[in-house]
Amino acid sequence: MNTPHVYKKIELVGSSQKNIEDAVNNAVERAAETIRHIRWVEVVETRCHVEENRIAYWQVTVRLGFTLEEE
Amino acid sequence: MNTPHVYKKIELVGSSQKNIEDAVNNAVERAAETIRHIRWVEVVETRCHVEENRIAYWQVTVRLGFTLEEE
Amino acid sequence: MNTPHVYKKIELVGSSQKNIEDAVNNAVERAAETIRHIRWVEVVETRCHVEENRIAYWQVTVRLGFTLEEE
Amino acid sequence: MNTPHVYKKIELVGSSQKNIEDAVNNAVERAAETIRHIRWVEVVETRCHVEENRIAYWQVTVRLGFTLEEE
Amino acid sequence: MNTPHVYKKIELVGSSQKNIEDAVNNAVERAAETIRHIRWVEVVETRCHVEENRIAYWQVTVRLGFTLEEE
Amino acid sequence: MNTPHVYKKIELVGSSQKNIEDAVNNAVERAAETIRHIRWVEVVETRCHVEENRIAYWQVTVRLGFTLEEE
Amino acid sequence: MNTPHVYKKIELVGSSQKNIEDAVNNAVERAAETIRHIRWVEVVETRCHVEENRIAYWQVTVRLGFTLEEE
Amino acid sequence: MNTPHVYKKIELVGSSQKNIEDAVNNAVERAAETIRHIRWVEVVETRCHVEENRIAYWQVTVRLGFTLEEE
Amino acid sequence: MNTPHVYKKIELVGSSQKNIEDAVNNAVERAAETIRHIRWVEVVETRCHVEENRIAYWQVTVRLGFTLEEE
Amino acid sequence: MNTPHVYKKIELVGSSQKNIEDAVNNAVERAAETIRHIRWVEVVETRCHVEENRIAYWQVTVRLGFTLEEE
Amino acid sequence: MNTPHVYKKIELVGSSQKNIEDAVNNAVERAAETIRHIRWVEVVETRCHVEENRIAYWQVTVRLGFTLEEE
Amino acid sequence: MNTPHVYKKIELVGSSQKNIEDAVNNAVERAAETIRHIRWVEVVETRCHVEENRIAYWQVTVRLGFTLEEE
Repeated sequence: MNTPHVYKKIELVGSSQKNIEDAVNNAVERAAETIRHIRWVEVVETRCHVEENRIAYWQVTVRLGFTLEEE
Repeated sequence: MNTPHVYKKIELVGSSQKNIEDAVNNAVERAAETIRHIRWVEVVETRCHVEENRIAYWQVTVRLGFTLEEE
Repeated sequence: MNTPHVYKKIELVGSSQKNIEDAVNNAVERAAETIRHIRWVEVVETRCHVEENRIAYWQVTVRLGFTLEEE
Repeated sequence: MNTPHVYKKIELVGSSQKNIEDAVNNAVERAAETIRHIRWVEVVETRCHVEENRIAYWQVTVRLGFTLEEE
Repeated sequence: MNTPHVYKKIELVGSSQKNIEDAVNNAVERAAETIRHIRWVEVVETRCHVEENRIAYWQVTVRLGFTLEEE
Repeated sequence: MNTPHVYKKIELVGSSQKNIEDAVNNAVERAAETIRHIRWVEVVETRCHVEENRIAYWQVTVRLGFTLEEE
Repeated sequence: MNTPHVYKKIELVGSSQKNIEDAVNNAVERAAETIRHIRWVEVVETRCHVEENRIAYWQVTVRLGFTLEEE
Repeated sequence: MNTPHVYKKIELVGSSQKNIEDAVNNAVERAAETIRHIRWVEVVETRCHVEENRIAYWQVTVRLGFTLEEE
Repeated sequence: MNTPHVYKKIELVGSSQKNIEDAVNNAVERAAETIRHIRWVEVVETRCHVEENRIAYWQVTVRLGFTLEEE
Repeated sequence: MNTPHVYKKIELVGSSQKNIEDAVNNAVERAAETIRHIRWVEVVETRCHVEENRIAYWQVTVRLGFTLEEE
Repeated sequence: MNTPHVYKKIELVGSSQKNIEDAVNNAVERAAETIRHIRWVEVVETRCHVEENRIAYWQVTVRLGFTLEEE
Repeated sequence: MNTPHVYKKIELVGSSQKNIEDAVNNAVERAAETIRHIRWVEVVETRCHVEENRIAYWQVTVRLGFTLEEE
């Protein structure tokens, strides 16, 4: 490790009608459109949006860490 | 928004032998028997009950938010 | 204090187009319709709902403490 | 466990001139007048009310968990 | 909800000589110059800068959530 | 900055019948009677005292930071 | 309440060979030697010092709130 | 309960390519090789390891509680 | 202090039908069977197990710190 | 202060083989390549990466605050 | 321990151009001018003040505990 | 990753007369005597022990994560 890495963390909220994992995955896929070197995800908060007294979709707040090379 | 909404939040623990999402869903279904306008769910804590060294069921503490119309 | 008091705390979310204090006040007023001896309020969380890039209303989560006499 | 249990949690503040345990006990006794299947108590916060520079009574905030059968 | 939404959250500090609400509003207005679909604001921290022993301005840290369409 | 500054932080609870900002201001004014170089205020907790089911006054816990020159 | 109260909070650690309540009480008694209007105590942290593998004394960190009249 | 139970809690991180529940299960299975009376699991933190901009596996930190009989 | 000490902390849950202090004490006594140099205890969480709507026993989670000499 | 400042906060992870301060410094230096008016840094979390049972480098999560002029 | 000790904790912010340890040390040295029996320091928060995009000095918030003999 | 890894985390307190990094290093070195595959360290808490009003040594609580192969 000659030049030490610097990582940036951003906070996203992914959503899914299926489950928690899929909501996280949707956030990662969306981030991967513009960020190249995502390294890890931290799940911060899990919520559900409810419609007509049933869970309509899962909303999961995540923090993504990625290598900061050129911004 | 002429008359501003007031929401109430209650705390339930749902359980399920299947997974986390099903435990949350069981809590919402049970609440929906007596509450009409559930709006959101916040997942507060996730635990498992273990029997004979295997996960017997998931226990998920949730906070439900619902519109307070007539109590 | 011969018989010691027991208090109950409930969690409400008040909202207002004006400001934080008014959102708290709306929650207290709504609670006062069915609860007789509210003693204190704890402000737990403050959020805004945004519409068309402007703050549409304040949403303040509060915990109300009240004397538990007859439920 | 054919039909999975759902528990509800409520927050009370018990008080006592004697000690912490008695304040918790007073909250449980008061709750037991209207709730049938209390399962556990979580101690959330401990405070004292002071009068004339002496501890007048202990105030302990607790969360009670109970089986939700028919509300 | 065919394609699930992904939201991004950023953290700003708004300031105001008037009050807390105005400091939050200044942060939202500044963000609205470059972000199109702000959905909510979470108030994270409130501080005051003091000059000559008087409150000079309010500094409120907020997290803004907005729909992530094209970055 | 030849000799580095040391700051002290103290915790006060200001109260006001008007609003949160005024309660903070009252705490600062009271502190300014005996402290010379207050630099910042951190809002720690906001509560209301309720009388006859209406908010009687706001109680805001703040931490004040000030330069420690001669105590 | 014409002139609103301002309270100050200080943090003490009381200790006792007997129990938690006695450790809190020792902190209050010590504070009462120099402070006139203590109003409440918040229990912040409870620890034990252990000697020869037995609990030697309880150490309880408390925050005391008192009316600030003349410092 | 003549002789009161003492439980020990340890902290593990389970991982899985499938989902959160499977990661928790792997931690429990691994612990069950050397611990006899696991009673409960608390989910502490959920993260993902990301490779080539896709979630490679889930990493879930759990605390396991087990009856301490002979260590 | 020529060779600096290293301490280890473990987490136990002690229980007692009597009170909080006794539950902590039971955890320490059990730990003292296999650990030689316990130095301090931190009380982390206090709960009660309830049976037939009465407190059956206190469950106190503690962290014990001890000198690490030979493991 | 005619036009009130708005600050933005971003979260970075700096790393260094030397020490904590150097890891923070590396994060600031990297940020300074693209951000002009950094005002403060908050240290959020400190970790070490370990290789062959020795600390290989320090990883420090920081939040940087900077004046938001033109984004 | 015939008469149990009572400790007081105060909160200071030390600063240094060199490093974190030096900032803590400056806070302790300043406190030692007026306090006789400082026993321990808890590091609460670490920040940096940044000038011209470089770390100008470290600001470390600490809590000092000292024996309360005569105030 | 055919067989998913399980990691264990333990909590140690390292101490040093020199600085924070050295205290962490001492904890890692001590752990490395009996643990083979330490992977990471999380710094949890930093304190100083003070003697004669000077910092005598740094005490840093860390959590070590290591691969659990055979216990």
